[in-house]
Amino acid sequence: MTFALSEPPAPSTLTAVPGPSTNATKRELDVIFDARTTQIVVDYEKSYGNYLSDVDGNCFLDVYAQIASIPVGYNNPALIQAAQSREMISALVNRPAIGNFPSQHWLKLLREGLMRVAPRGCTQVFTAQSGSEANELAFKAAFMAYQRKQRGPDNQHWSTRELESAMKNQAPGSPDLAILSFKDSFHGRGLGSLSATRSKPVHKMDIPSFKWPQATFPRLKYPLEEHEDDNRAEERRCLQEVEHILASWYCPVAGVIVEPIQSEGGDNHASPGFFQGLQALTKKHGIYLIVDEVQTGFGATGRFWGHEHWELPAAPDIVTFSKKAQTAGYFFSDAMLRPDKAYRQFNTWMGDAARVIISNAVIDEILSKNLVEHTARIGDILYERLAALSTKFPQLILNLRGKGRGTYIAFDTPDASSLLKEMRNAGINVGSCGVSTIRLRPMLIFGEEHIPLLLDGFEKVFAKLEK
Amino acid sequence: MTFALSEPPAPSTLTAVPGPSTNATKRELDVIFDARTTQIVVDYEKSYGNYLSDVDGNCFLDVYAQIASIPVGYNNPALIQAAQSREMISALVNRPAIGNFPSQHWLKLLREGLMRVAPRGCTQVFTAQSGSEANELAFKAAFMAYQRKQRGPDNQHWSTRELESAMKNQAPGSPDLAILSFKDSFHGRGLGSLSATRSKPVHKMDIPSFKWPQATFPRLKYPLEEHEDDNRAEERRCLQEVEHILASWYCPVAGVIVEPIQSEGGDNHASPGFFQGLQALTKKHGIYLIVDEVQTGFGATGRFWGHEHWELPAAPDIVTFSKKAQTAGYFFSDAMLRPDKAYRQFNTWMGDAARVIISNAVIDEILSKNLVEHTARIGDILYERLAALSTKFPQLILNLRGKGRGTYIAFDTPDASSLLKEMRNAGINVGSCGVSTIRLRPMLIFGEEHIPLLLDGFEKVFAKLEK
Repeated sequence: MTFALSEPPAPSTLTAVPGPSTNATKRELDVIFDARTTQIVVDYEKSYGNYLSDVDGNCFLDVYAQIASIPVGYNNPALIQAAQSREMISALVNRPAIGNFPSQHWLKLLREGLMRVAPRGCTQVFTAQSGSEANELAFKAAFMAYQRKQRGPDNQHWSTRELESAMKNQAPGSPDLAILSFKDSFHGRGLGSLSATRSKPVHKMDIPSFKWPQATFPRLKYPLEEHEDDNRAEERRCLQEVEHILASWYCPVAGVIVEPIQSEGGDNHASPGFFQGLQALTKKHGIYLIVDEVQTGFGATGRFWGHEHWELPAAPDIVTFSKKAQTAGYFFSDAMLRPDKAYRQFNTWMGDAARVIISNAVIDEILSKNLVEHTARIGDILYERLAALSTKFPQLILNLRGKGRGTYIAFDTPDASSLLKEMRNAGINVGSCGVSTIRLRPMLIFGEEHIPLLLDGFEKVFAKLEK
Repeated sequence: MTFALSEPPAPSTLTAVPGPSTNATKRELDVIFDARTTQIVVDYEKSYGNYLSDVDGNCFLDVYAQIASIPVGYNNPALIQAAQSREMISALVNRPAIGNFPSQHWLKLLREGLMRVAPRGCTQVFTAQSGSEANELAFKAAFMAYQRKQRGPDNQHWSTRELESAMKNQAPGSPDLAILSFKDSFHGRGLGSLSATRSKPVHKMDIPSFKWPQATFPRLKYPLEEHEDDNRAEERRCLQEVEHILASWYCPVAGVIVEPIQSEGGDNHASPGFFQGLQALTKKHGIYLIVDEVQTGFGATGRFWGHEHWELPAAPDIVTFSKKAQTAGYFFSDAMLRPDKAYRQFNTWMGDAARVIISNAVIDEILSKNLVEHTARIGDILYERLAALSTKFPQLILNLRGKGRGTYIAFDTPDASSLLKEMRNAGINVGSCGVSTIRLRPMLIFGEEHIPLLLDGFEKVFAKLEK
């Protein structure tokens, strides 16, 4: 099944990667914009579906997809149609302060748009512009709700002492409250979200942070089905650590944030039981569970939301999204998470209607083409092929993981950076994460016909690296 | 001189404001999206130039302009053209991770686009999505540069102790470092930028904050020319307070952030001498001066950048922008502010090329139509007319300010909220700030012909309120 209209039959490279044109542009760009991280300068207008074309005439099968954020292919015709709509043009040129002056389309954009894919049990949405912003807004919602509960239902009055101290960044108005996150997690790079992020020193060095606690995320053994007892014990130990922190941290912990699969941190999994246990702990302590679906949301795990795999007894309190959504924000249901007063959760733009229009077109594509089910099916095939390949290269494919999680598949390899480089030279754009992990993040339109191309690429490069 | 193509000759209202259709939509919207702050539901497709049309058939002269963020009018034809360009469609549907995979247009978009209006002395730009994000990125740049200086040129190595402590949110890797801001300032609502924001308790209550210091912003007496001695003394006192804090705060202060005119906080001005003194203090202490031009930038003060009024001996270290730019980010020049390693200042999207394309069209309009000079001229006329009106209503127009600052004009009034309401009923959309201040934030295409409409509106409403 091919979804894109004009994909080439296979990747092709004309130059070593990065090619001379990328390098030349990178040098020029670097004069005015930090271009040290530039990997490929792309000709997006020549890119189609799963294929990315660069300015050197190279054409890559792209299973990294702009750091996991392209959902339905480059130059998707349905998205192009949305981009040309009258409504889009108005959203682009008449950018509203949505909180005060929403357009006549905003209600429909949300109700018949984003809300169609709201996680089960979530009845409201707050829009934002990035995953990092969405997470910080979620933290703020949790802090305000936590304090509201402390004040009690009959006393929502702010005392003079609170009013004055808040303006001085002091308690009680600006209290010490924490968000618990997990080691190796990634939740963004704003000063608040970065305090929850625990991925790599390069993200955190020299930046002041809130004194928030971290618990160990389970370090499971793979394949999961061969280590059930060990993994259960490890998860139990991690939950005990969470409970210990909640009971003993120097200030109240108002919320826990967790990724369904730790992505930037190395594609680390945990079982549904772990997440059920985590939710039970947050309920017991009367605090909020924030599920960061910035990377797992919108279908990549073979369910629309990664947390659907857990079969939680109740909806998570807050679910944040971005990346494949092509916009950002958070879903929630608990009425306490809508602040007691207007303007407490507010900013000038409150997201970007132009990006919500694109998001709606993405959702249309996903739903009308059953791309979530498709991704679940393709992921199963891809996982089995990689498992077979791993028996041929047991030293190069280690800890293969993501079984039953759509195309959200990863493995460790001794030298991820050489592998990435050689894969690009072979015309395949792959991403890495964690210490030395290859993460596959194909689009939702990655099909059965792409699997042999990807597998052949791995096989050739592994053979080369083994020498 | 009329810039917009199809403006009505005057505002007109058919209903009380908000009208029944706004109220009905607001009720429906509120089920899924916090709509308590919704003021007017707008038909942007029927809005032109300086005029905003709502879903009730009301048509407002808009001198608030989406919280000071519409630069060149609703449905500006040049912006519509940019919105329909092939490049825009690609930027919308193929959203790049700009830091890794910039498009072939990105270099040109910056070099022949945003960099055209870079503040004098600023040679580089970092792109973002909101003013709040831009300010936090600026803080991070300042923190990293400050620590880099502390390590010294011969020792940029990160010790094991730094690496390990950073991951735990502890010093020395994650040090206590502060940003000094001013009382009544507004710098955004992320957890970091909010720690610098000191505007209103509703922005800060219940949210944890960094223990950063605030200095008093000068409380000048208006009109400025009648109180020169008092104002000079007040500014001297405030600078002494800054110096005292820099010398005595419990942790190093790495930067100072200041608005050219405190906007959300009440349109508070200070003299060029104050800002020159502030820069001298930051230079003396070897720390960074961040000028937050999110609201003052892009021409509204009669200069492209508000800080151009100060005639500083050297460029500010960092200048942040958003709002009228229709995108966001910061300009800088000091090589120390580009981190010593790649990926320290980075995120998935690094701004939004679609919004940078709009920004370029805005810049084209501003430069080709001399809108900054136009705004300076119109502002002078508008100020004089308001000064004349204030002699007629001395109890309703107090502390008129913004002389020589383009249309960035404000005054205090005893009951700003009633005045706003009545002005809307008279077909004029005005904004407020501070405790009870009316702030004028017309677009850069506000022309001489709009002045009598605005002044007549004020006069009628004042006459009504006086009764």
